[in-house]
Amino acid sequence: MYNLLKGKKGIIFGALNNRSIAWKVAERANDEGAKFVLTNTPVSIRLGEVDELAKNCNTIVIPADATSVKDIENLFQQSMEILGGKVDFVLHSIGMSPNVRKKLPYDNLDYEYYHKTMDISAFSFHKVLQVAKKMDAINEWGSVVALSYIAAQRTLFEYNDMADAKAALESIARSFGYIYGREKKVRVNTISQSPTLTTAGSGVKGIDGLMDFTERMSPLGNGSADECADFCITLFSDLTKKVTMQNLFHDGGFSSMGMSQQAMLQYNKSFDECDCDLVEKYKLKG
Amino acid sequence: MYNLLKGKKGIIFGALNNRSIAWKVAERANDEGAKFVLTNTPVSIRLGEVDELAKNCNTIVIPADATSVKDIENLFQQSMEILGGKVDFVLHSIGMSPNVRKKLPYDNLDYEYYHKTMDISAFSFHKVLQVAKKMDAINEWGSVVALSYIAAQRTLFEYNDMADAKAALESIARSFGYIYGREKKVRVNTISQSPTLTTAGSGVKGIDGLMDFTERMSPLGNGSADECADFCITLFSDLTKKVTMQNLFHDGGFSSMGMSQQAMLQYNKSFDECDCDLVEKYKLKG
Amino acid sequence: MYNLLKGKKGIIFGALNNRSIAWKVAERANDEGAKFVLTNTPVSIRLGEVDELAKNCNTIVIPADATSVKDIENLFQQSMEILGGKVDFVLHSIGMSPNVRKKLPYDNLDYEYYHKTMDISAFSFHKVLQVAKKMDAINEWGSVVALSYIAAQRTLFEYNDMADAKAALESIARSFGYIYGREKKVRVNTISQSPTLTTAGSGVKGIDGLMDFTERMSPLGNGSADECADFCITLFSDLTKKVTMQNLFHDGGFSSMGMSQQAMLQYNKSFDECDCDLVEKYKLKG
Amino acid sequence: MYNLLKGKKGIIFGALNNRSIAWKVAERANDEGAKFVLTNTPVSIRLGEVDELAKNCNTIVIPADATSVKDIENLFQQSMEILGGKVDFVLHSIGMSPNVRKKLPYDNLDYEYYHKTMDISAFSFHKVLQVAKKMDAINEWGSVVALSYIAAQRTLFEYNDMADAKAALESIARSFGYIYGREKKVRVNTISQSPTLTTAGSGVKGIDGLMDFTERMSPLGNGSADECADFCITLFSDLTKKVTMQNLFHDGGFSSMGMSQQAMLQYNKSFDECDCDLVEKYKLKG
Repeated sequence: MYNLLKGKKGIIFGALNNRSIAWKVAERANDEGAKFVLTNTPVSIRLGEVDELAKNCNTIVIPADATSVKDIENLFQQSMEILGGKVDFVLHSIGMSPNVRKKLPYDNLDYEYYHKTMDISAFSFHKVLQVAKKMDAINEWGSVVALSYIAAQRTLFEYNDMADAKAALESIARSFGYIYGREKKVRVNTISQSPTLTTAGSGVKGIDGLMDFTERMSPLGNGSADECADFCITLFSDLTKKVTMQNLFHDGGFSSMGMSQQAMLQYNKSFDECDCDLVEKYKLKG
Repeated sequence: MYNLLKGKKGIIFGALNNRSIAWKVAERANDEGAKFVLTNTPVSIRLGEVDELAKNCNTIVIPADATSVKDIENLFQQSMEILGGKVDFVLHSIGMSPNVRKKLPYDNLDYEYYHKTMDISAFSFHKVLQVAKKMDAINEWGSVVALSYIAAQRTLFEYNDMADAKAALESIARSFGYIYGREKKVRVNTISQSPTLTTAGSGVKGIDGLMDFTERMSPLGNGSADECADFCITLFSDLTKKVTMQNLFHDGGFSSMGMSQQAMLQYNKSFDECDCDLVEKYKLKG
Repeated sequence: MYNLLKGKKGIIFGALNNRSIAWKVAERANDEGAKFVLTNTPVSIRLGEVDELAKNCNTIVIPADATSVKDIENLFQQSMEILGGKVDFVLHSIGMSPNVRKKLPYDNLDYEYYHKTMDISAFSFHKVLQVAKKMDAINEWGSVVALSYIAAQRTLFEYNDMADAKAALESIARSFGYIYGREKKVRVNTISQSPTLTTAGSGVKGIDGLMDFTERMSPLGNGSADECADFCITLFSDLTKKVTMQNLFHDGGFSSMGMSQQAMLQYNKSFDECDCDLVEKYKLKG
Repeated sequence: MYNLLKGKKGIIFGALNNRSIAWKVAERANDEGAKFVLTNTPVSIRLGEVDELAKNCNTIVIPADATSVKDIENLFQQSMEILGGKVDFVLHSIGMSPNVRKKLPYDNLDYEYYHKTMDISAFSFHKVLQVAKKMDAINEWGSVVALSYIAAQRTLFEYNDMADAKAALESIARSFGYIYGREKKVRVNTISQSPTLTTAGSGVKGIDGLMDFTERMSPLGNGSADECADFCITLFSDLTKKVTMQNLFHDGGFSSMGMSQQAMLQYNKSFDECDCDLVEKYKLKG
């Protein structure tokens, strides 16, 4: 709509279906004039609908397991061939915890799974960055964004070992952002997004109640996947060249709230016992 | 109980009655072997029960308005005479907002009141520090603590302009902590305490609901005034000599929580609508 | 260049001359299709060159002292008349400390000046917001930005009471951002900008050395006024609708750095004593 | 000296020699009346001098590799037998990066090593907590502390993948602190300590220059290992019962500093070029 990414090339990780944030980012990047390739694991490509997205965006999907250095190398190699040169932006929207999947609570983690959570959800980001830098695959003033969550700062029950992975992810953005900035002027940031009802988000137990709470806590309500995509575009654009090593909250204000009137009103309703008592009385009366 | 403050001298601002945190700090400092003077505004002394506390602690109360440089000078002068030398610790437990008192909401502040809130709740801390430093009234490795609240970082509805005052208070701790540390090895910190049912706390609208929420959010529950006093003692002791310019949360873990199971369970109860519908039905039936 | 602000109306506080960040924001907002009015104090208008800017942007300058509620009311009233309706964005780029001007160090503050620092540099932001909200002068999904500095979080010698003012400023962004967001969907943020050689910045003692240090610490170097203006535009645009109550660092990564290689190398040079010894020797030799 | 830990039992990980922070904590815990066992890896026990410490503290050393769940189980089992019951405190002072050891820079990490860094320096903390909780080996209101570093928040060149490990470590303190607090009233915190010339610290390249810089930046200077031990004692004591899920800076104020006068003065000396020019002149002259 604004040609903000005109002439820019990119790689977008993690689009599964039209609820995915990465999907929305791809659509918006397409609107803004970017050329890019899509990528996901072979399984996700098969189970999801990313081929449809590729068609709409006039591009292709290159399968890659983001925990495999070899796959990432191949991805960057092919991307540069297809796009005709180095890329300008990369979106990392990847996260998965086998412990969560297997319903192992945080005080009964399986440690091999824990390493896998870390590998998939955090180290994959390092691998993308390290491969890109070694291959010199990102142009100067390029922009790399990974999606994070406030669990990196504050504990949310049921979010489990993903919290530690997000903390590591944000640390990687800083650690690698320093080096990539110093040497190639590439910026690296994370967006800490509101809870979102993507396929991945839906897997988090109790996310409905949580989303109601965060919606009422946030003065502007939860950020949607579409809105998150808009924000992403600004970070890929040339208008944010000196923003790096940051974790940026896109959450309607939630992260800066201690307690809102709306959330407190709702919370206080939970103590309305009179009615329940009445019900009991009426019930007894018949 | 441990003689942690044996031989130490201090000044304690803000004890009103036995619900005050400053009151508890005085009792604990007394237990730990410190000698100190108490101080408060003439009005608070008259309305409160600080004379009783002074008797129990075998000390006196020196009236002082903490917004008056003259009063603070007199306070330090007299304190040093009575205690026989410079002091080792100071507690600043002072806060008041005329806007809150007059029920002026944050989007309808009276600006003279706003300045008063700042003067009483934040600048008074600067005045205490500036006077102390000019009079060279605090020994090397002395410790100054002010009580703060998480509203300095996150917005809580109804907390009003006190949030801005607490943000300034914590900034003063850093700004003056740098200078006082550099020149006299005096450390300056703030404790960010759980909501507490002191006389001041009781004045915050809706504090009951809030305290229930923070109690359920915090894995260890809210910190009590007694527990806060214990924590204060450690900061006045010689065991924390290199802790300075910090805001330390004493809140049972609340500040690091995004959502707890207990708070979520309670929150979700607020949506139990069936019963209310039943009540309506029964009511209609008579 | 992108029409990011096409159809949007705004008010820009604080342009003095072409080194001002507000000046650059005005130029960029003009490029992006916005209509806006400029404002500054009568003195600044006389001493500066804002009339020239107004001409270039095909707009006018409305004098207003941002500490005067009356002036701000008049400003919004006139602006709405001139622009033909409510505004969509406001930039607050205002800060001044009489204590700094009079070279009163932080441990010898004049307390009337301290209140003035707070009034000019922080409360003025509250006044702008309160007046705007009372007059319902900002459209839904409007965006308000104030310029801040990392001194709000970390102490920098010589920055003096401006640090406390910036801490309060950022608190006001949160406190008012909650209310304005909840009721009118208006977002409120601060940008924490690199040290910048504006007329105001030049007044900070030792800013040259500091800027060299932050330049070497930041992987992307200091953010310039032009780059800051670009970032501002993204926050005024419709692409950042759910970003509110945030303090966003535009600083080339400085805020996330502990120590860079370049800064350390430079720092370590300060210990090269051999040459100085040689000089002494040579001098002695004649 | 104060009997702060009288009657308390504990386990201390990570004492190597008398420069270790864990060593100092053991000595101080002994002074304060605690009974505890020491533990380290078999290699560290052989290479270090922990047996001497054990003798001085009238206790024993139980070898355990903190990445081995089996070893940790055995450690807790034996400790409870020897100490006669559950423990009250645990110190985790463990960190190692094979990437650092092998001089692999952060943009050329070996990924197996990266997992090892994470396993040794972060997951080991989770293992200690998970084993303790499963065995119900820590008394109610017990206290667990791990040592961290500001690299978890801010990038320091050469600190490499240890930064990510420390970020994960602090996240684990929060994540597990929530569960352990909720269920057993056990608190979990990290101390973020100044750079320290321990055997581990000495391994960090360029630590001398860094320590000079942080010494001059911190108004109270760097925290020593002895002072850190004192601070640890307060966290193990009953005086900090409601402090949990926190990262507490023990760093002389460094974390809250942007720039100090002393560091700036030193930094600016690096630009004294006159002398060098003179040297060149003299040299030419002969």
